[in-house]
Amino acid sequence: MEFISSKDNRIVKDAAALQDRKYRDRTGLFLLEGPNPIREAMQQGGRFRFIFTRAGTDLEKLGLQELAENGAPAVYELAGDVFAKISDTETSQGVIAVAEKKTYSEEAFFARDDGNVLVLDRLQDPGNMGTLLRSAEAMGFSGVMLIRGCTDPWSPKVARAAAGSLLRLPLFAAGSGGEALRLLAAHGKTVYCAAMGEGSECYLQPLAKNAAIIIGNEGGGASAELRAASLPLSIPMEGRTESLNAAVAGSILMYESLRQRYFN
Amino acid sequence: MEFISSKDNRIVKDAAALQDRKYRDRTGLFLLEGPNPIREAMQQGGRFRFIFTRAGTDLEKLGLQELAENGAPAVYELAGDVFAKISDTETSQGVIAVAEKKTYSEEAFFARDDGNVLVLDRLQDPGNMGTLLRSAEAMGFSGVMLIRGCTDPWSPKVARAAAGSLLRLPLFAAGSGGEALRLLAAHGKTVYCAAMGEGSECYLQPLAKNAAIIIGNEGGGASAELRAASLPLSIPMEGRTESLNAAVAGSILMYESLRQRYFN
Repeated sequence: MEFISSKDNRIVKDAAALQDRKYRDRTGLFLLEGPNPIREAMQQGGRFRFIFTRAGTDLEKLGLQELAENGAPAVYELAGDVFAKISDTETSQGVIAVAEKKTYSEEAFFARDDGNVLVLDRLQDPGNMGTLLRSAEAMGFSGVMLIRGCTDPWSPKVARAAAGSLLRLPLFAAGSGGEALRLLAAHGKTVYCAAMGEGSECYLQPLAKNAAIIIGNEGGGASAELRAASLPLSIPMEGRTESLNAAVAGSILMYESLRQRYFN
Repeated sequence: MEFISSKDNRIVKDAAALQDRKYRDRTGLFLLEGPNPIREAMQQGGRFRFIFTRAGTDLEKLGLQELAENGAPAVYELAGDVFAKISDTETSQGVIAVAEKKTYSEEAFFARDDGNVLVLDRLQDPGNMGTLLRSAEAMGFSGVMLIRGCTDPWSPKVARAAAGSLLRLPLFAAGSGGEALRLLAAHGKTVYCAAMGEGSECYLQPLAKNAAIIIGNEGGGASAELRAASLPLSIPMEGRTESLNAAVAGSILMYESLRQRYFN
């Protein structure tokens, strides 16, 4: 295991650059921090380029002895201040992987017959996105389509909030709302859009299968184009709240679809 | 309107101290930042001690002319660096109130017959707590009981995520899990506890009224004492996720109770 003590090391600089979306987009790589996410990615057949440990970190104790043993990917031990340059968390457990993003073709993304799809339109908050990925997997959705303009799903914050679902759940990047609608129609999905206080109550709509549910921007909801081309789906609300948190609204609608499959 | 240019001003120092829970606990006051939360609090009859504006902020433009006009509470204009000492946000809209916490007696908290109650046990994340308060109001819950050990509901982060619900929804602080259970029983509530993968599916349990739903700590769930004294309530899950985000789980269970009231 090689030791790196300089922040100017080329491998360290390249890894730190992956904190920026631009560099993640260009390279197809992303940073995965912490023993649990890395272990889960290994179990998913995730591919790593490098592993960085902070000086003194014991991979065996973190349950990552495989990484230390098999020689691929390359493992580097970094001085504390060099490690901090790559780390995104204040209380890091001392291990970060440079991993390859997982991409799906249209065919692979829509492989599951009758599957439900979550569609995100300009969702901005990484915590909300990560939470929605986690909920989408739990509620049995077959994948999540991200329309251009969303926050990057491969950012460290999303990876943390997604708690493993990021690499287990098929993701598909759509270039525009129009492309998303065309693909969803081609694969037989009925397209719904979360709408507060308008449209039919979600429990009156058939969501058990072949449903696509759009969750829009935290402030303004989905685009006019998407709203015009979809059925409004309402979560009934009381009190004087005007809306729900976007991750909560999406998770409730996905739960409702699971409930209909199990119970109706 | 008095202008304050010094960070050492006593009123400024006292307000900045309210960033600490200790000081909020001692004084019964808290900080409310931004025009929307302040306007909503005014509509709720919230009581303010002071209003601070950043030099150049126009209260009228923010829809807060009433505050500028009626002379009570006292309004102070602060130099930018002095204002920043009190502000919790990076992109502040330039207005902060020192407001009185709203407290409820046992009787007032349980005033609504048949009402449902959300119970939080050692919930740590302010964003989760704020989101749960917002969902609890939207799903028609009559109040939220906070068992000692939770993050402080009166912190700036909770106020932000709660988006107005903090002052509209009755809150009650219980000194211990035992006290919470005793009060819930005395008021005829059936006590449920969110449990992943065990217990009866939530849609098979009668949650429409007189239900108390416990959401526990993000890492470890509810305490053994609370689990032993409640009925486990499960959200069915697929995939390999081990759990849902705590705010999502609580919001789904509250939605399920609303759905049963509206639809069953």
